Amino acid sequence: MRKKKIGGNVMADLKGNVIVGQSGGPTAVINASLAGVFKTARDRGAKKVYGMLHGIRGLLEEKYVDLSQHIKSDLDIDLLKRTPSSFLGSCRFKLPEIKDDTEIYDRIFGILDKLEVEYFFYIGGNDSMDTIKKLSDYAILNGSKIRFMGVPKTIDNDLAVTDHTPGFGSAAKYIASITKEVIRDGLVYGTKSVTILEIMGRNAGWLTGAAALAKGEDCEGPDMLFLPEITFDVDKFMRKVGELQEKKGSVVVAVSEGVKVADGRYVCELTDNIDFVDAFGHRQLTGTARYLAEKISREVGCKTRAIEFNSLQRCASHIVGRVDITEAFQVGGAAVKAAFEGETGQMIILKRVSDDPYLCVTDLYDVHKIANVEKKVPLEWINEDGDYVTPEFINYVRPLIQAELTPMMVDGLPRHLRLED
Amino acid sequence: MRKKKIGGNVMADLKGNVIVGQSGGPTAVINASLAGVFKTARDRGAKKVYGMLHGIRGLLEEKYVDLSQHIKSDLDIDLLKRTPSSFLGSCRFKLPEIKDDTEIYDRIFGILDKLEVEYFFYIGGNDSMDTIKKLSDYAILNGSKIRFMGVPKTIDNDLAVTDHTPGFGSAAKYIASITKEVIRDGLVYGTKSVTILEIMGRNAGWLTGAAALAKGEDCEGPDMLFLPEITFDVDKFMRKVGELQEKKGSVVVAVSEGVKVADGRYVCELTDNIDFVDAFGHRQLTGTARYLAEKISREVGCKTRAIEFNSLQRCASHIVGRVDITEAFQVGGAAVKAAFEGETGQMIILKRVSDDPYLCVTDLYDVHKIANVEKKVPLEWINEDGDYVTPEFINYVRPLIQAELTPMMVDGLPRHLRLED
Repeated sequence: MRKKKIGGNVMADLKGNVIVGQSGGPTAVINASLAGVFKTARDRGAKKVYGMLHGIRGLLEEKYVDLSQHIKSDLDIDLLKRTPSSFLGSCRFKLPEIKDDTEIYDRIFGILDKLEVEYFFYIGGNDSMDTIKKLSDYAILNGSKIRFMGVPKTIDNDLAVTDHTPGFGSAAKYIASITKEVIRDGLVYGTKSVTILEIMGRNAGWLTGAAALAKGEDCEGPDMLFLPEITFDVDKFMRKVGELQEKKGSVVVAVSEGVKVADGRYVCELTDNIDFVDAFGHRQLTGTARYLAEKISREVGCKTRAIEFNSLQRCASHIVGRVDITEAFQVGGAAVKAAFEGETGQMIILKRVSDDPYLCVTDLYDVHKIANVEKKVPLEWINEDGDYVTPEFINYVRPLIQAELTPMMVDGLPRHLRLED
Repeated sequence: MRKKKIGGNVMADLKGNVIVGQSGGPTAVINASLAGVFKTARDRGAKKVYGMLHGIRGLLEEKYVDLSQHIKSDLDIDLLKRTPSSFLGSCRFKLPEIKDDTEIYDRIFGILDKLEVEYFFYIGGNDSMDTIKKLSDYAILNGSKIRFMGVPKTIDNDLAVTDHTPGFGSAAKYIASITKEVIRDGLVYGTKSVTILEIMGRNAGWLTGAAALAKGEDCEGPDMLFLPEITFDVDKFMRKVGELQEKKGSVVVAVSEGVKVADGRYVCELTDNIDFVDAFGHRQLTGTARYLAEKISREVGCKTRAIEFNSLQRCASHIVGRVDITEAFQVGGAAVKAAFEGETGQMIILKRVSDDPYLCVTDLYDVHKIANVEKKVPLEWINEDGDYVTPEFINYVRPLIQAELTPMMVDGLPRHLRLED
């Protein structure tokens, strides 16, 4: 068997073709995982590394590229790590149950066989792991030798089993950094005001909780945090804001886009929003901060600001964490290594060995036990009043926002790697 | 006369007391100007350097600090440069005309005399220069020897005479950087969508135009820009968006918060916003992007996103320009030097000597000719269709966003200097 030299003097067997795709919402470091898959596959002897365009949806239309035509140098790899949004494009595409429609699976496997793909990597969150689960099941049912591996990513940090997900740390770092800036900005006039920060995370409060990291020697942090794990009581909220407003000038409150009132409606549904529901039935959540700020302005009568942290949370690659981006690269590489060693139907997970000094290793986990399970903030990490996180929460998140990866600045702006047409 | 050693072996005469204040909306580099005033005054022999808290409003309540109690080391100076929001607090306070109310002037001069202040520096925009103008006029009318100097700042870049204002470059750099990220984020699903970016700047389009800097080798830039210098035609806008939507997937459009329709109303007033008017009669402008995005969603039927770049534009000190922060420091220092040499009633301006290589020097200008004049984008720097800026505009802004001042990261977050109670 032919061998190929990899890092140091190790020789690897030459491997078959690899295909990799990105799915679901991007993170600031999702392309570091792509870089990890690409570099590791290439170094360990993959013949070709294909990238599917817009995930499984693009693959079904036979849209793919030969990645070595687009990532041509070590500089490209490092630019890729610093490039926001999914380099290959993404999709929100849910495969049907195998029993309901085998035709689509036959089509996918036909295309993979035509490309002589032996290893399939999918970088994504819950919905993407559902895809890996179904494809690996189908392969087993039909005697295909193709190996399917999941590479975790999501800013929401809501994937089961893994200690955390790559992408969360950088989003948390971004949120905590701008929360510090906004808190200080709120103090500028010394007048009464209430600022409501609206933070992503859907039904999990990890990102909203991360705003608490702003608290430190040089910042008092937000005054209250409202996570979707706790039912949101509008009256209680208004009372608390009113009390705080009596005591201090600038009040800053972070609310999750996903907070719900007792009858199950999202707070943002209490207003007259235009809704958007994606292929997975996820509703576009926006307007929570605006709704609350307008209510406070009307009922408390002070100046209010509603600040949506918006999509920058998932694409602010100008401030990413080095711990996060390193782990994002590692999970990509670990997926390739495991697949090349024969694994399939698994997702790479991160296992925390130690908090301080922080140490985390990769491991494998059966994707069947991960897909479609939402990991929420444990209730014991939220205070009794339901308006802040505990020190345990902070200790968990703090190591994940450490260190920086400096953007490569060209002519005054961060440089990105672009997929040429 | 006593002498004090300054940089190198130069000896300076010992000077009287200095007071400095910050006024109006902050910028990401307004504290670099404060650092410039403080360090230059101290190095050139000022006895005391006072900081008024919340500008002239705080001074009237005799709220001030001895700055050397709060800026104690070179490290503090460098942290101050990286600290967002006005370190001393700010105000929006308009002095009455001298002929209408001398009592308030007597009060201010009484407090200044009590503090033995000989030099008064005010860091601010148009409204603050109005304050400097009135105070220096009053001093002349009443034989006071106190010298009054204006130090320019504003993200809006709408101050007359000066080539540009410190604070604009960093805001432009931030806007162009995140516009790049958001444009790329918009491409992720390869589906039809329209993103509307809402950018600050009130009646001047400098910041909105700066979004065009995103365009380069690795980014196609926004599709259209709408500056407040051009009357906004809602129907034409809708037609153009519709045409673009036919041609491409993701359409990204930047609109100024200050765009107005033909009858003089702000676009954001076409909706049912809650208004806020400050002491200078400035209306809080917000909701333009939301109004347009909802209209497109309804009438064109595609997915839309409204992204307000919000107050981060004036406080994102995690990504500032070194050219900008250096100039911000320089104008503070130049104001002190000029006042110590006997000048009063002047504002420091920046004069561009050369575009490429970029070279800019400081100069003095009579504040009477600056206050209350709004500098807008010249119409010849906007294209004929009124939906983009010209290369001349880009050539003017590009040098101002160059180079970086790295934040000092502590425990994963940018560190700021805090004014201790």
